[in-house]
Amino acid sequence: MTLAETKTGTRAPDNRGSVVISVDAMGGDRGPAAVVAGIAESAERNPDIRFILHGPKAQLEQLIARRGDLAGRCDIRDAQGVVTMDDKPSQVLRRGEGTSMWSALESVRNGEATVAVSCGNTGALMALSMLRLRKLPGVNRPAIACLWPSRNPHGFNVMLDVGADIRADAQDLLTYALMGASYARNGLGLARPRVGLLNVGTEEHKGRAELKQAHELMPATAESANFDYVGFIEGSDLPSDRVDVIVTDGFTGNVALKTGEGTAKLIADLLKQAFGNSILSKFAALLAMTSLKRLQKRIDPRRVNGGVFLGLNGTVVKSHGSADATGVSAAIKLAFQLAQTGFHNRLAARVAQSLAPEAAGPAGETNIK
Amino acid sequence: MTLAETKTGTRAPDNRGSVVISVDAMGGDRGPAAVVAGIAESAERNPDIRFILHGPKAQLEQLIARRGDLAGRCDIRDAQGVVTMDDKPSQVLRRGEGTSMWSALESVRNGEATVAVSCGNTGALMALSMLRLRKLPGVNRPAIACLWPSRNPHGFNVMLDVGADIRADAQDLLTYALMGASYARNGLGLARPRVGLLNVGTEEHKGRAELKQAHELMPATAESANFDYVGFIEGSDLPSDRVDVIVTDGFTGNVALKTGEGTAKLIADLLKQAFGNSILSKFAALLAMTSLKRLQKRIDPRRVNGGVFLGLNGTVVKSHGSADATGVSAAIKLAFQLAQTGFHNRLAARVAQSLAPEAAGPAGETNIK
Repeated sequence: MTLAETKTGTRAPDNRGSVVISVDAMGGDRGPAAVVAGIAESAERNPDIRFILHGPKAQLEQLIARRGDLAGRCDIRDAQGVVTMDDKPSQVLRRGEGTSMWSALESVRNGEATVAVSCGNTGALMALSMLRLRKLPGVNRPAIACLWPSRNPHGFNVMLDVGADIRADAQDLLTYALMGASYARNGLGLARPRVGLLNVGTEEHKGRAELKQAHELMPATAESANFDYVGFIEGSDLPSDRVDVIVTDGFTGNVALKTGEGTAKLIADLLKQAFGNSILSKFAALLAMTSLKRLQKRIDPRRVNGGVFLGLNGTVVKSHGSADATGVSAAIKLAFQLAQTGFHNRLAARVAQSLAPEAAGPAGETNIK
Repeated sequence: MTLAETKTGTRAPDNRGSVVISVDAMGGDRGPAAVVAGIAESAERNPDIRFILHGPKAQLEQLIARRGDLAGRCDIRDAQGVVTMDDKPSQVLRRGEGTSMWSALESVRNGEATVAVSCGNTGALMALSMLRLRKLPGVNRPAIACLWPSRNPHGFNVMLDVGADIRADAQDLLTYALMGASYARNGLGLARPRVGLLNVGTEEHKGRAELKQAHELMPATAESANFDYVGFIEGSDLPSDRVDVIVTDGFTGNVALKTGEGTAKLIADLLKQAFGNSILSKFAALLAMTSLKRLQKRIDPRRVNGGVFLGLNGTVVKSHGSADATGVSAAIKLAFQLAQTGFHNRLAARVAQSLAPEAAGPAGETNIK
């Protein structure tokens, strides 16, 4: 199914029944009201979705009572503790039990939900996810994948790791390629994603040792895991249409992600200033509003809201801390899409296959998506 | 003196006489015509500037003959060889003698010119600069510094290293801070630049080992070298007004630089599309033209055209390979500014002082800019 079908909610109910998403109501900058508004928006659009919502029971019950769309489709799990943006991951690991974040992961851990969504502290969420869900066998370093506005027809490229870890060796980069390609197949519907390795130049002799090593090993992995390897790419290629998945270590990926966001924000601010400069340009801006809104919708970070944690026993979607209802709803849509396609089991099978390729039969005969 | 004074060329001639800039006419994507047009533009604006131009003599003489502003102000040094964008640095090191790039550096090496400018292959230019100019005593890894559009009143931040090397240890990062601060003082006219260290978060416990180590050592360096250390910054802070100089390793800096450029290009393209969508929005775009042009001027990469190689015995300005006359002229303006302020000697003194701080007297008593 496509994202559009999910969005309009016109798809006829099928035998797979409802998809349950576990949602951390707390820890975002805008509090639980924005989270409840976001899940209500998703519930309205998508009849196949149900929620388990984690946070202080009395407060959540009040918020939910006002949303008709959520009636009978949202279980509440009481959790009085909240992980704040300032909490250090190490503290949360020791004292996080009883928080809404811990509780949200628990629903995935015990199989009640397929995907967990949180707007909370990224470092703490990753640390807790590692502790409670554990790494998938064969994955040394889990990764966070984000969507990046691109010139591709589907509008986005996948980049990973954008901050789960600060380093990655050649083997980690191969695993990221595998996981990123699987995410692109299931999250973006691409049959055979093109994967590039982020470097400071496209020539073979460039870059760090682990990049050169991964570059050597990538073609074999690509063949067995059903993706195309396009070679080294540069920072300017992140929005390019010659690649779908960008593989890099979490330090570089995090700097690139925030640099892109910062650049877009600067240009938006300068554009606002430019249009505010004279009566004539204010009038022009008014006329141009439709065009500008169309553009904003295209590059609005709220609409690509959701970093996905890959390489754990369960899928976790990290929404922006500052997400409003639209942002939360976008993260929920992604979570639903991944749950619906059975993404987690497919990814696990891919990783298992790469560990023992001989057991999976010759390349191309596999049915794993 | 300020950039504005240089640009208008209204400053009265002083006793220092003319500044000589050595220019590589070849190796850029647009050929020597764009380079000659660029230096002619600079010559017209700035009566204090003279050139030594390197390339095939007959061809350059023809181009110069057409430019009245260059009459008597441009020496030609015949060099028949050209370093192309595809040449590997290692090849150029072995066979580069006789190229215009080699020749351009020679004029700085023998003291005829203070600064060299080239639009050619960055890797080759850095390799040749290292070979012919040699590293400044006390500098382990030279760096390339670029200007980044920012919210600061002066409009730009300095970032280094953006690609001279692919790694940097703590000591290199301290040297980059020193050199970047000196560049900001002399190139941007900032009395006491604020320096930040690029990381994946602003908390002290984050980041790689060399970053944590540099973070510990930075306050002492800042005190002796007359800059303020603002701590860790993130990718989203690159255009920020809470920092003037951004220090990072050349791998991360190069990815960030190209990511910023790629993002700006994507937004510009989407904006064009958005405005082209209907007659009404085309009309709006026409009305908005002045505002958009003002914005474009602000973020036009041609106007911040010039990476500067720091840490060598001589200053080298690397212009964009695709620079047109405006781009070349911007690079020349920067080269002039750095030559005029005696930047190179000041930077060398800073590095020497940091090697033997006790010899330079107590902090604050130094006159080095």
